[in-house]
Amino acid sequence: MPTMHDAAIPTITRALKNLIHVLEKAAAHAEAKKIEPAVLIGSRLYPDMFPLGRQVQIASDIAKGGIARMAQAEGPKWEDNETTFPELIERARKTIAYLESLKPEQFDDGSRTVSFPVQGQPKTATASKYLYTRVLPNVFFHCATAYNILRHNGVELGKADFLGPLEA
Amino acid sequence: MPTMHDAAIPTITRALKNLIHVLEKAAAHAEAKKIEPAVLIGSRLYPDMFPLGRQVQIASDIAKGGIARMAQAEGPKWEDNETTFPELIERARKTIAYLESLKPEQFDDGSRTVSFPVQGQPKTATASKYLYTRVLPNVFFHCATAYNILRHNGVELGKADFLGPLEA
Repeated sequence: MPTMHDAAIPTITRALKNLIHVLEKAAAHAEAKKIEPAVLIGSRLYPDMFPLGRQVQIASDIAKGGIARMAQAEGPKWEDNETTFPELIERARKTIAYLESLKPEQFDDGSRTVSFPVQGQPKTATASKYLYTRVLPNVFFHCATAYNILRHNGVELGKADFLGPLEA
Repeated sequence: MPTMHDAAIPTITRALKNLIHVLEKAAAHAEAKKIEPAVLIGSRLYPDMFPLGRQVQIASDIAKGGIARMAQAEGPKWEDNETTFPELIERARKTIAYLESLKPEQFDDGSRTVSFPVQGQPKTATASKYLYTRVLPNVFFHCATAYNILRHNGVELGKADFLGPLEA
């Protein structure tokens, strides 16, 4: 029977690998165009939206925190002190390494109950509902917003960069 | 055993319902601020990116086309002639109605092979891989980009509008 591990881990590690690829392209663009990388990392689509760097940290937090809950594990805590492209890429890599360290046996078929906060309020749902209504949409939201911030700033990206190669 | 129906249909109909909610807020914002709706519908984050209206059409196309392939069905073809908020909302509603018309028995456990184009090249993958690496990321990408275009234009939206209420 497919478990939550099968649905969640390859999907989210793939999203994060594609995010790393997008960040690498942004770093190369900044270097080629003599743009201060901090300008891109601090860019946002609207004054009260989070900038690029924070989008990457939140994608990481939702991935490690959400999946840890589903695996009944304690996710790692990190400081959110990344300020450069290499540091943000390393943050995404550490997140992938954590997800890949979890064992398939730690996941169930999606029927067990998971507790989590929604806008500060405690909620519960099945692991399956939590994955499909919270974790996956939220990870993709922040990866897509990171992409959109960079695209809006002229980094040459296409949707294939966001989706990644099918074979990967 | 959970089928691809369980993983795909509630997840994607939910994403489209949240997209409708975001479009309704945008329409109300345009009316309140006396903004021509066509200005928002034609907005884009970069000159060679698709504008809002096309983002909605593509989200619909990927949802109906991708899910039809997984269900071994023929998805409906629509004209992409929506130019107003009510028309774009109706397009998303029709897409939801099509997805909900498919029967759970039309889906498998994700192991059967699906054929689909990637940048014009024919590809095959299991239905499960197709869902998790193409259909879901792609639908969320266009829903998030629609949200980001509107947010960038000053429509008051928060991530809760994108994720929707847990109870829904």
